[in-house]
Amino acid sequence: MTNLVTFGETMLRLSPPRHERLENTSSLDVHPGGAESNAAVAATRLGTDATWISKLPDSPLGRRVVADLNRYGLDVDVVWTGSGRQGTYFLEIGGRPRGTDVVYDRADAAVTTATTNELPTGTIRDAELFLTSGITPALSSTLERTVGEVLETAQDAGVRTAFDVNYRSKLWSPSTARETIESYFPTIDVLVTPVRDARSVLAETGSADEIAANLAGEWGFETVVITRGANGAIAYRDGTLVDRPAFETETVAPVGTGDAFVGGFLASRLAEADLGTALEYGAAVAALKRTIPGDVAIVDPDEVERIVEGETETISR
Amino acid sequence: MTNLVTFGETMLRLSPPRHERLENTSSLDVHPGGAESNAAVAATRLGTDATWISKLPDSPLGRRVVADLNRYGLDVDVVWTGSGRQGTYFLEIGGRPRGTDVVYDRADAAVTTATTNELPTGTIRDAELFLTSGITPALSSTLERTVGEVLETAQDAGVRTAFDVNYRSKLWSPSTARETIESYFPTIDVLVTPVRDARSVLAETGSADEIAANLAGEWGFETVVITRGANGAIAYRDGTLVDRPAFETETVAPVGTGDAFVGGFLASRLAEADLGTALEYGAAVAALKRTIPGDVAIVDPDEVERIVEGETETISR
Amino acid sequence: MTNLVTFGETMLRLSPPRHERLENTSSLDVHPGGAESNAAVAATRLGTDATWISKLPDSPLGRRVVADLNRYGLDVDVVWTGSGRQGTYFLEIGGRPRGTDVVYDRADAAVTTATTNELPTGTIRDAELFLTSGITPALSSTLERTVGEVLETAQDAGVRTAFDVNYRSKLWSPSTARETIESYFPTIDVLVTPVRDARSVLAETGSADEIAANLAGEWGFETVVITRGANGAIAYRDGTLVDRPAFETETVAPVGTGDAFVGGFLASRLAEADLGTALEYGAAVAALKRTIPGDVAIVDPDEVERIVEGETETISR
Amino acid sequence: MTNLVTFGETMLRLSPPRHERLENTSSLDVHPGGAESNAAVAATRLGTDATWISKLPDSPLGRRVVADLNRYGLDVDVVWTGSGRQGTYFLEIGGRPRGTDVVYDRADAAVTTATTNELPTGTIRDAELFLTSGITPALSSTLERTVGEVLETAQDAGVRTAFDVNYRSKLWSPSTARETIESYFPTIDVLVTPVRDARSVLAETGSADEIAANLAGEWGFETVVITRGANGAIAYRDGTLVDRPAFETETVAPVGTGDAFVGGFLASRLAEADLGTALEYGAAVAALKRTIPGDVAIVDPDEVERIVEGETETISR
Amino acid sequence: MTNLVTFGETMLRLSPPRHERLENTSSLDVHPGGAESNAAVAATRLGTDATWISKLPDSPLGRRVVADLNRYGLDVDVVWTGSGRQGTYFLEIGGRPRGTDVVYDRADAAVTTATTNELPTGTIRDAELFLTSGITPALSSTLERTVGEVLETAQDAGVRTAFDVNYRSKLWSPSTARETIESYFPTIDVLVTPVRDARSVLAETGSADEIAANLAGEWGFETVVITRGANGAIAYRDGTLVDRPAFETETVAPVGTGDAFVGGFLASRLAEADLGTALEYGAAVAALKRTIPGDVAIVDPDEVERIVEGETETISR
Amino acid sequence: MTNLVTFGETMLRLSPPRHERLENTSSLDVHPGGAESNAAVAATRLGTDATWISKLPDSPLGRRVVADLNRYGLDVDVVWTGSGRQGTYFLEIGGRPRGTDVVYDRADAAVTTATTNELPTGTIRDAELFLTSGITPALSSTLERTVGEVLETAQDAGVRTAFDVNYRSKLWSPSTARETIESYFPTIDVLVTPVRDARSVLAETGSADEIAANLAGEWGFETVVITRGANGAIAYRDGTLVDRPAFETETVAPVGTGDAFVGGFLASRLAEADLGTALEYGAAVAALKRTIPGDVAIVDPDEVERIVEGETETISR
Repeated sequence: MTNLVTFGETMLRLSPPRHERLENTSSLDVHPGGAESNAAVAATRLGTDATWISKLPDSPLGRRVVADLNRYGLDVDVVWTGSGRQGTYFLEIGGRPRGTDVVYDRADAAVTTATTNELPTGTIRDAELFLTSGITPALSSTLERTVGEVLETAQDAGVRTAFDVNYRSKLWSPSTARETIESYFPTIDVLVTPVRDARSVLAETGSADEIAANLAGEWGFETVVITRGANGAIAYRDGTLVDRPAFETETVAPVGTGDAFVGGFLASRLAEADLGTALEYGAAVAALKRTIPGDVAIVDPDEVERIVEGETETISR
Repeated sequence: MTNLVTFGETMLRLSPPRHERLENTSSLDVHPGGAESNAAVAATRLGTDATWISKLPDSPLGRRVVADLNRYGLDVDVVWTGSGRQGTYFLEIGGRPRGTDVVYDRADAAVTTATTNELPTGTIRDAELFLTSGITPALSSTLERTVGEVLETAQDAGVRTAFDVNYRSKLWSPSTARETIESYFPTIDVLVTPVRDARSVLAETGSADEIAANLAGEWGFETVVITRGANGAIAYRDGTLVDRPAFETETVAPVGTGDAFVGGFLASRLAEADLGTALEYGAAVAALKRTIPGDVAIVDPDEVERIVEGETETISR
Repeated sequence: MTNLVTFGETMLRLSPPRHERLENTSSLDVHPGGAESNAAVAATRLGTDATWISKLPDSPLGRRVVADLNRYGLDVDVVWTGSGRQGTYFLEIGGRPRGTDVVYDRADAAVTTATTNELPTGTIRDAELFLTSGITPALSSTLERTVGEVLETAQDAGVRTAFDVNYRSKLWSPSTARETIESYFPTIDVLVTPVRDARSVLAETGSADEIAANLAGEWGFETVVITRGANGAIAYRDGTLVDRPAFETETVAPVGTGDAFVGGFLASRLAEADLGTALEYGAAVAALKRTIPGDVAIVDPDEVERIVEGETETISR
Repeated sequence: MTNLVTFGETMLRLSPPRHERLENTSSLDVHPGGAESNAAVAATRLGTDATWISKLPDSPLGRRVVADLNRYGLDVDVVWTGSGRQGTYFLEIGGRPRGTDVVYDRADAAVTTATTNELPTGTIRDAELFLTSGITPALSSTLERTVGEVLETAQDAGVRTAFDVNYRSKLWSPSTARETIESYFPTIDVLVTPVRDARSVLAETGSADEIAANLAGEWGFETVVITRGANGAIAYRDGTLVDRPAFETETVAPVGTGDAFVGGFLASRLAEADLGTALEYGAAVAALKRTIPGDVAIVDPDEVERIVEGETETISR
Repeated sequence: MTNLVTFGETMLRLSPPRHERLENTSSLDVHPGGAESNAAVAATRLGTDATWISKLPDSPLGRRVVADLNRYGLDVDVVWTGSGRQGTYFLEIGGRPRGTDVVYDRADAAVTTATTNELPTGTIRDAELFLTSGITPALSSTLERTVGEVLETAQDAGVRTAFDVNYRSKLWSPSTARETIESYFPTIDVLVTPVRDARSVLAETGSADEIAANLAGEWGFETVVITRGANGAIAYRDGTLVDRPAFETETVAPVGTGDAFVGGFLASRLAEADLGTALEYGAAVAALKRTIPGDVAIVDPDEVERIVEGETETISR
Repeated sequence: MTNLVTFGETMLRLSPPRHERLENTSSLDVHPGGAESNAAVAATRLGTDATWISKLPDSPLGRRVVADLNRYGLDVDVVWTGSGRQGTYFLEIGGRPRGTDVVYDRADAAVTTATTNELPTGTIRDAELFLTSGITPALSSTLERTVGEVLETAQDAGVRTAFDVNYRSKLWSPSTARETIESYFPTIDVLVTPVRDARSVLAETGSADEIAANLAGEWGFETVVITRGANGAIAYRDGTLVDRPAFETETVAPVGTGDAFVGGFLASRLAEADLGTALEYGAAVAALKRTIPGDVAIVDPDEVERIVEGETETISR
């Protein structure tokens, strides 16, 4: 049995090396990137038996996505198609005040036509936990329907479900996002949301603590996790709130931090850790992620544990 | 006055370095590539005052295409749009027997919606010669119509027109291509076609010499040029046929060879060279192109002349 | 059920880029390389369900070997150990007359202590075909014994066995190699040997055809395959000899050619191809391999088939 | 009409990648660099129609400078010569305390022989604003004279003039610099100077505010701008002083910061911005420049505006 | 006469570029690295006539170590052998909290069999100062004996001796280290030790100042130097204690900092500097080292002096 | 005693990687290159004790030249100067028909002011053989005189002298070259010349064999060596002519081939080889050189010997 199944789009990320600009770079580094596969890789690295499901074009680009994910240890169960593109995105990482810029080129990706029928729902039904994010339904109306259906499929099969709000302003408006995402809430057990999205998309107000309690109260989530970037994360469950700080980090690659957190948190929960420990593991994986090129957290359990335990010797020899 | 105006799509070419495979490469080299801008760059390098017209997305990727072409000395006159993609293509160059593989990702490129109204037709009307190719109408039905209209615009303004058949099997079928391309023939003065396309698309038979005469006779072209790869090229005009061999070359980058030939040939003709000389310049630019990474012929007039004159000293110091 | 299981050492290959020398290079490219995993990858790429078994150090280097092989689609079933090194080798590829130089740094690799007891022999027993090579017993006296035992294990379980002589002069002498390898012959069904090794190690004389017949006659092999580099390969079975030429190739990376051939040949045989077809598939995979950086044949079935069928169009677009 | 014309030397900058040392690097990155073309590129990026004029050797190196500047959108109007070198400089960027080291190799550059007669003074006369810097007259006695003459040419034609003191201790002494630069002052409308140069070269004393007022009073400049590095810049005009801070930045490439400031400031002024806004645009372009490899500010108006407005969201997606 | 002779192992350091992970990198940068040659290079750069002695395999890898050290200006006097490996180590440098990870692959290096007889002890006897470190005896029991013998050789010849404790937990335990190292103390004139090693290995207690005095008192060292990382270093001699801070630095490559300090300190002492000045030179070389890729301090005397004198202008042009 | 001393200029060669053009490359590879140091390195690699003497600027660039040459094992004995440039040259290597293009940037190099007085003539006087080439006097009138003087110095000290004509059309005319070079002939023992230079510069006619005999007869050279590129080389001495073919080679880097030949030939002669053997060693080193990036022959004696003996196994493992 697979512990964790995630569903979503994985793009090829194309990014200039060494602070170059897209307009000027002579080469682009290639990495796989997608919220749900990022989270699944992070969980895999901590020992979770995870599988990513999706729909990919039968091309060298689609096959490359699978090769990349396999390399990081993730199992994949994908539908191959002769039509539809491999989504890509161009990423420029600049120091302050330049910031990080994303140019999506993911319209008409193969996954945007994925229906529940063609997806390997058996894999979902056999899982312990199913995860998707607010990015997936934003990609097409087909996916909006499919996400609802597979969440119901999971729920019907007794599989726990997790959902990361993960709002993307380049894909849809806050109001559309809210309507869609709230329609899934009855099928969701664990809600993860950046506090910013909770406010701007879910129209929550108050402190992060209040938001967590409100969301849990209003929708009946088993667990609500609110992430606050450098200010750490909180988890709310059964009327109890746990708060953990983020770890300090020297950032090389900021994209994927949230996904790394989700993967680390869920892997810990699947391994029966308590909420506080799970938040710490999420935070440690997220901190490590920021030091690693690419969007995925290529970590191993020892170093995550070392960070959770506060070991700070910087050269191990 | 601009001597040469060309119209078509320029993609960003993304290719693995050093014989790597798309499935496995950690980085991709970035070059601009498009039949009509390739030809225009080649002509520019020989001293032609050339402009490429097109429609591009207003994004770092679209701006990069312009930056790249400017760098090679080409003027551009483009319509910017907020919708539509920047077309890309992934290119894998392998030695024999692996061959060269192209994965197009150009669907829904911004240029596919370009209408005659929005294009800078004044620039065309002021030109001495206008060039487009069979790739452009293959990209969308809008472009199929637009190509016809701009060719007529050129003809009406007394601008000579050139057309390179340039059949791409990944874009359309031979029969569709034939129907469309033949509909443009009444507006075309100089027809360039690979002998292979003449046979498979235009349904010509016989030797290259016979094909050239047939096409000229049937459609009334002022000049017909038939390219035969390593076997050189022929030109037919006013009942006279000129035949010139190709130059031997060590191939580093095969894509763009035909466009380099067309650019070199047209630049020579615009500079009043006779047909034979123009074929030789086309062949020399094409031979140089194959030694240069990327799709465009970054050459200078001296070295082209040196090759035309058969100078072969290999180290100049 | 796995179709093919292979056993041996996979090293990290460290090679200077762009014809540089080991003495002078500022960086080294990293690739996995090992005869038996190379062959298994090649077979995997043609659709065989293959697994490589071995013993690896529990270090970032050992984990990297698994990541690399997973990326190419190969399953691995390895024993992890806290002692023993990850074998490496330094490879310098130079054009003629410089040649290709290998500096092994594989002494005391973790695999050299692998005993039959700790290896996943169940995986072997469940296979259709088991492959190892003459490199493995040359690595240590423990492995010399282990190879004999796992071949017997396979034979006892009714699993067919294949053995590639693959003599390495930097590891042992011809006479020691002969004695050891011949001791395995009673347990081997398919013998593959370069004609050079047949002569220098197995002390065979005569033409390749005669050698194939002699070996089959003397030792009772089901099939004998003799490879002759650029001169193609022959296969002998049931008194019948089949001879197929090699494909012409532009060589970028010569190491791993023989392994690619073996992988392609065995995959074809497992897919019930006749001997001649299997030789052609082996030859096509080997030819492609030489055009691809690294030691493994990152191919796909379509292109292999295209080469077997003699298609030679060099740009597909 | 061109808005801005600048005159000076553009070198090829050769710099080791990744903190390497010149003594040890195996490769050098190539970028164009020159105070006046740097400023012109910055202005171009903000929408100014700018042209750089100079004298270049007719060699691949001279042509490369033009190609690089064209790529960034800058027009060039250069005299080509068969004699004289292309100036280069070697740049080593080290973190603290190593610092940044410049090895000039610009002696006898083609531009050092540029006379007023051969320069395209018509281009200057048609401009709205003409800019040069204290580096140009430091390069040769011919240039010392030429700079004076072209400033007079501009003044006579009613073109406003700007001058950046830009003292380089590796080119001349403070006293020689002072004598030469002050001889130009009667022809200069806008004086820009680092506060450090105002003190060490122009022998000013007191606070930056006092220096600005003094210089304006003494020489009758229309505007005086004093830059103070991380402490921001001030502008003085018509008895009014405006002071704006610098933006915080993560420095990747410090060279060219001052030029970026000047380009941003002048572009804003040409676009009729008030002094304070122009200082802010200068500061924003300068801050962005420091995050971008190379010497020029490859920016676009949107991001400059975003920084001026204090938007700090670090990932846009 | 050589001023300084050092003895120890120099490995090839293989490290992923740009923050990559060993598990994932496609290439590895190559640098020489070894405590005693690092220190000798640092001293050489400051003008000391230094020689490194060791035993190396007669292979491209061993020859490369010599080529690398020669390039930095260091003389080498090595015994070549046909057996034994060239030691390597894999180094991953990650920002906080990831840290720096070292994977040694130095077992059975050629140097581990080096006996006093085969080493060029004449070179030692002719030196002014001999240096080795606690790493060398940790590599093999042969080296444990050899280190003792060569220290005695030096002492007998009236050569001053220096020893850097340099404890490596991946090589031996604190108690074994203590026993061995203390057995050398009677032959050592200058003891250098990180305060951490003084505590954990030499079982010293109290402040760094107390430790220095205690060690000098207990063992009769001429000089004791205690390094405290970012907190600077102290030196104790003839009852006097000198304390100097470290210089602030932006770290690119932390490995080799301590060796750079030792090289700078000893070079200064050999040039007759007083203790305080020598500590400052050590600190300046160490600070520079951290800004330079690789393990060795490729510095020149001018920049070291500049830092010692507190000059902080960051761009020299 | 040094066996071989050579005198001339060593430049920094800056060349685009991977067939790129100077106009377009984003980086340049750095190698040292100079006829006399190239030859000295080649001789050093074969076991000759060689020293290169010259004059260099005291800058990171000058120091880099020494570091590079030290790395290849060559001793250097140079005069450092505060004035004068480090010569560079830009090299573009293109396949046929593009050819190899050299852009010299060596005017006013420090070495151009080298006088006999300041050069380490003692090092020359202690040598067995002294070598310079026709490039050195072409660099300045000072060097023209200095070359004559140091050749006389060598002759007076009983040191044998060798001279490689090495005509460079970008430096001087054939007639000037002839006049200068012939003025040195009375002091030269071993003359090496490409047959092309013998004809175009020395105005010799007839076959290579006749030219060798004529030159020896006319000027009294002890030995005359004529190189004929791919057609091999001949040596004439004491009325006897020896002819040896070139070895076939796959060319990666053609520059430096002649220097490698000279170094290999002279090293063999210094090691008392007969003329034929020396020609073979020269040819083997030259063939290897062409396969190695950069201008110098980084070879070792074993592989040179292997090629001389005609061993052709292409993978050694």
